[in-house]
Amino acid sequence: MDKLQHDYPWTKAPLVSCGPMRLIALSKLTSEVSKAGGLGFIGAGSDCSTLASELESFEKLQTESQVLAAVKDVLPVGVGFLLWAGEKLLKEALPILEKYRPAALWLFAPSHPDQLVQWTKETRRVTQGKTKVWIQIGTVADALEITQSCQPDVLVVQGNDAGGHGLEKCAGLVSLLPEVDDALSALCAEQEIKKPTLVAAGGITEGRGAAAALTLGASGVVMGTRYLASPEANIAKGYRDAVLKASDGGVTTERGKLYDTLRGTTDWPLRYGGRGVLNETHYDAAKGMSVEENKRLYEDAMKMGDEGWGEKARLTTYAGTGVGLVKEVKSAAAITEEVRRGAIAVLKRTSTHTWT
Amino acid sequence: MDKLQHDYPWTKAPLVSCGPMRLIALSKLTSEVSKAGGLGFIGAGSDCSTLASELESFEKLQTESQVLAAVKDVLPVGVGFLLWAGEKLLKEALPILEKYRPAALWLFAPSHPDQLVQWTKETRRVTQGKTKVWIQIGTVADALEITQSCQPDVLVVQGNDAGGHGLEKCAGLVSLLPEVDDALSALCAEQEIKKPTLVAAGGITEGRGAAAALTLGASGVVMGTRYLASPEANIAKGYRDAVLKASDGGVTTERGKLYDTLRGTTDWPLRYGGRGVLNETHYDAAKGMSVEENKRLYEDAMKMGDEGWGEKARLTTYAGTGVGLVKEVKSAAAITEEVRRGAIAVLKRTSTHTWT
Repeated sequence: MDKLQHDYPWTKAPLVSCGPMRLIALSKLTSEVSKAGGLGFIGAGSDCSTLASELESFEKLQTESQVLAAVKDVLPVGVGFLLWAGEKLLKEALPILEKYRPAALWLFAPSHPDQLVQWTKETRRVTQGKTKVWIQIGTVADALEITQSCQPDVLVVQGNDAGGHGLEKCAGLVSLLPEVDDALSALCAEQEIKKPTLVAAGGITEGRGAAAALTLGASGVVMGTRYLASPEANIAKGYRDAVLKASDGGVTTERGKLYDTLRGTTDWPLRYGGRGVLNETHYDAAKGMSVEENKRLYEDAMKMGDEGWGEKARLTTYAGTGVGLVKEVKSAAAITEEVRRGAIAVLKRTSTHTWT
Repeated sequence: MDKLQHDYPWTKAPLVSCGPMRLIALSKLTSEVSKAGGLGFIGAGSDCSTLASELESFEKLQTESQVLAAVKDVLPVGVGFLLWAGEKLLKEALPILEKYRPAALWLFAPSHPDQLVQWTKETRRVTQGKTKVWIQIGTVADALEITQSCQPDVLVVQGNDAGGHGLEKCAGLVSLLPEVDDALSALCAEQEIKKPTLVAAGGITEGRGAAAALTLGASGVVMGTRYLASPEANIAKGYRDAVLKASDGGVTTERGKLYDTLRGTTDWPLRYGGRGVLNETHYDAAKGMSVEENKRLYEDAMKMGDEGWGEKARLTTYAGTGVGLVKEVKSAAAITEEVRRGAIAVLKRTSTHTWT
């Protein structure tokens, strides 16, 4: 049996996960992903204030599924945190992790590498190792350093195509994933430590991308953008419509710090930026509009409801370069199953092609 | 039989090609790639002055291989041009294409889309369609426009991880390739035109990347960076050593216009930049060194021989983000065969994994 299916016994291989999108991936979305044999991550982000109630709500939704209801040792869901938020977040998170024991914890964006060590150690302590530790990386150097310092259960290897926050300087999965895999194999053999399982993120929206990730060395995939077009994602219709409409994501999305500046979320360490669909906010900034003026217009747009999103509008529309492959709203469960089955079908079709 | 093996009957599937690296991919490298069942592209670039002699030399090398010697209708090699060079290049190229009839022509970087139409039409005319037309794109919009205007035989879909020149704004292959594939299928069905064959480029250096490209919709792959570490590539030892030494290419390479500025090759249309390994030239530019001073130091470095390359040195080291997977010098023939066989083995291994 695969390691991931051993650790998360309600899941099917290859594992399909939804990333811990802050304010978007809550109990409603993640319970549907987990029910469909995936692993949903609730996006706690930098704030624990609603986490306990979301986990409470997940516990109730869990009973709708026989398979999930049968999971007793842990809560069949993950939780994701942004570590730059600091010591206070860890202090607030620990009692919640201890009480609800989510199956996995996703750590991202520390302002100092020691935070990863501390979170890993404390979480394993309060949950007796029941909550598995996932750490997101985007470089070979980080993969090596973190594997040595934390021995995480899973490394989430995020390529440059990902939507939302990621490293400003980062390769795509095609080269990043195999290089991380090789470097970790060498390190772990040399130091006789356990090699973390690799899960891929960044640009994957359907079966072909998922199949590619598996050939590159991943045991599972994480998607964010694809789930934005599910009714269970907690986003405005305007945001969802802008995602459905966008295409050619290499041209129509961009990674940067503009939205963080305008929205006042400026605590992100310098090396991270958010990828989103370009709109008037970007075009005006590129034409030289001042931050003050752009901020004012942004705040006006926030009062416009769904009209605030779109190519001709101004609000943040985080999405990855795969946005052009997202054409249809589907339930999170259908997405999870479709991507898992699609990946297997693509691998079968491609490998049975008669290569001369 | 696959379309590519029909058109290039000495090749084996999946097709492995070397990109038309200017000054680097010449008769020596390309003949080894073609002999190993691949398709080598000579990098003519923006200049025809040595092309006839390179093709002459290829004709001689071709006779060393029984399989290649048996190819009569065309020369079993490709040639790549940079179309921004203008009308003069086309005028000089046509008689050479007519005389030698290379199996494929690779068109890239027009300053106006009409140039693609003109080159395609004229080449097909002088070679009676024997020379197949490959056109390199990096966006869905270009793929659609060019398929309608030129009906190329092959579209080379280049992702952002590629070394050397490519679009400054461009997605990675994981999302770009499937979106191009879907968009072309829809267009070609609607307009009843033939769908071009897709070949993938950008970040592929070995079997896993090649397998990923096939799952994403490609029928073949193109590599540049990997072939830099072959004895047949026409590059200085210093350049090759810098490629072998570099790792973590998402961090240690960058796309931009700096080298073009310093080397005076400023005719590239604005949307293109070159990806290369970072060195003192970049670090100094980032610290604010003037172009004049950087240029002067660059010219000094050009007199230093192999010492001019490396992290602490200054000379252009174009390479893709997959540079960290290039660890060993191997013959171009061995690389070609290894990647082809590796891709098939990876697909077989991944598809026969027991997914629950």
